[in-house]
Amino acid sequence: MAEQQTFASLGKMEAIRQLFEGSGYKPFEEPLHFVPAAKSAVCTASRCFLEGVDFNLVYFPLKHLGYKSVLAATAELFASMAHPRTLQICLGVSAKLDYEQVKLLWSGVLSAAREYGYSRLSLDLQPSRNGLSISVTAVGETLSLTQARRSKAKSMDLICVSGALGAAYMGFQVLEREKVRFDAGARTSDALEQYKMLVGSYLKPELSSGVVSALEEAEIYPSYGYAVSHGLSDALLRLSRDSALGAKVYADKLPFEGNTFSLGEEMDIDPVSAAMNGGDDFRLLFTIPILQMEKFHKNFPTFDIIGHLALPEAGTVLVTPDGVELPVKAQGW
Amino acid sequence: MAEQQTFASLGKMEAIRQLFEGSGYKPFEEPLHFVPAAKSAVCTASRCFLEGVDFNLVYFPLKHLGYKSVLAATAELFASMAHPRTLQICLGVSAKLDYEQVKLLWSGVLSAAREYGYSRLSLDLQPSRNGLSISVTAVGETLSLTQARRSKAKSMDLICVSGALGAAYMGFQVLEREKVRFDAGARTSDALEQYKMLVGSYLKPELSSGVVSALEEAEIYPSYGYAVSHGLSDALLRLSRDSALGAKVYADKLPFEGNTFSLGEEMDIDPVSAAMNGGDDFRLLFTIPILQMEKFHKNFPTFDIIGHLALPEAGTVLVTPDGVELPVKAQGW
Repeated sequence: MAEQQTFASLGKMEAIRQLFEGSGYKPFEEPLHFVPAAKSAVCTASRCFLEGVDFNLVYFPLKHLGYKSVLAATAELFASMAHPRTLQICLGVSAKLDYEQVKLLWSGVLSAAREYGYSRLSLDLQPSRNGLSISVTAVGETLSLTQARRSKAKSMDLICVSGALGAAYMGFQVLEREKVRFDAGARTSDALEQYKMLVGSYLKPELSSGVVSALEEAEIYPSYGYAVSHGLSDALLRLSRDSALGAKVYADKLPFEGNTFSLGEEMDIDPVSAAMNGGDDFRLLFTIPILQMEKFHKNFPTFDIIGHLALPEAGTVLVTPDGVELPVKAQGW
Repeated sequence: MAEQQTFASLGKMEAIRQLFEGSGYKPFEEPLHFVPAAKSAVCTASRCFLEGVDFNLVYFPLKHLGYKSVLAATAELFASMAHPRTLQICLGVSAKLDYEQVKLLWSGVLSAAREYGYSRLSLDLQPSRNGLSISVTAVGETLSLTQARRSKAKSMDLICVSGALGAAYMGFQVLEREKVRFDAGARTSDALEQYKMLVGSYLKPELSSGVVSALEEAEIYPSYGYAVSHGLSDALLRLSRDSALGAKVYADKLPFEGNTFSLGEEMDIDPVSAAMNGGDDFRLLFTIPILQMEKFHKNFPTFDIIGHLALPEAGTVLVTPDGVELPVKAQGW
């Protein structure tokens, strides 16, 4: 068997060269650059993931973590209707992680970079004293920038989301609970199998790579777009802040994964609260002119209409099934 | 006196709003975007700074740290001849840092953002369990992209750097030594005053904001450009790797700050080795066609010509004053 390779034996440049080998991407494109089409707007989305805060390596498979990091930044590009172009990853690698583990993480990055159509990719490695840090910068371009249409937003524009909410948070709760059980000596668990979909929402979120092109082809242009990465409340508050309009969403319109409610009961977590305040769903939230509702529904059946913009005086509210309007609030930071 | 504000009392959104107040920048531009001129290339430079590895808060003033973080990413844009456009900062804030301290850090970011002409700026705050992390993403555009002229590089192109090398590393050594003395009970130090310039090179590096425009106006177009952020050796090895050419630099042409040599003697550090392997100088290294030497010299007196590209078989070497050619090697990672 070949000798195990290490960062020390390889050196940084050779390690990066090897990580790019066979990937289809050229290493060492410094700095990353591209020439956008005339009149295109260029969008940038940066995200930073810190061990111990944003992920726990005890149960987060490294490959999934690499994939999810890229997905998170990409969702922000999609929310602006931007097409991915360049992707830059900076890893702060703690002594705890060896080269083979970084290779796993990187394989997830590569898989997402290809899936979302990034044409150039760069990687920088640096030592970290305090756990793994993953910094991701995604750059894209668009001729149909969401932000450019903000002034056209109307108080009856529909609020739509691209899939189930709260599922990632529920899955995260299952993983945390099983970790505690495991630490206490348990060696088997039905929960991971039973709540596979929810756990999967947390570890392997999905984002349709074709959504921006599909919207452009259908000539549907959102007035606002957000990646729902810190819960629906956060996205709605940003929407109200940016639009200076109110927003109403309806609790009974919120989409949930299959067994969210049975888990909610089991763990005493309110699924609506998970949707509003849980994070890591990475769904897209768009506001769509009400006149395009039918076309949108037909072309984008996986999206759910959960509410609408409203006059400023309506505020930002969650409407319960019995018609009570609860003001949406920011959760900590 | 007004009550001390905290992140908990403000909330993230309000904290960001206040940090932007009076800055001339609009908060919450999500994601950052701009429309580049037709045919412009868009360049991205991302850097991540981690406490305990890249800086020590014991002696690094927060304002300087914010400034330096922006400068580091900006230097990479300048190396590609790009003009700064958007700047994105993501701070991982540990419980140790309070809002007032983040304000100090941010004032340095703002000062650099204005100086280098960024037109849009965004900030994200997140909690960090393991010390402060600063992630910086700079995006710029250019019609005279360095990378586009690489094929025109010739083996006699001159290698030029924008100022003294090794000074930041020497200054860092002074700070580390004084920290040890201070920890051991010393309460006065002449060294910080005596080596003010060197310490300043580490804490407050400088980068001329007009250099890209000046090169364009003089019609001087480098074939390669690098920010010297991890020592000259690293920049030269990247140059050789990218150009598939050799590179010769001359030890007696390397520019040094005033009292680098006396400090070198005092601390038993070889200044040439500090220049080659020390980091954080953030000088620009350009290769310039030899026919433009005179014009370059006249227009850019602060740049020093330290060597030239060479045939591949010459390798990447440092030539000592007595003519010995030492191969340039990568240092750790």
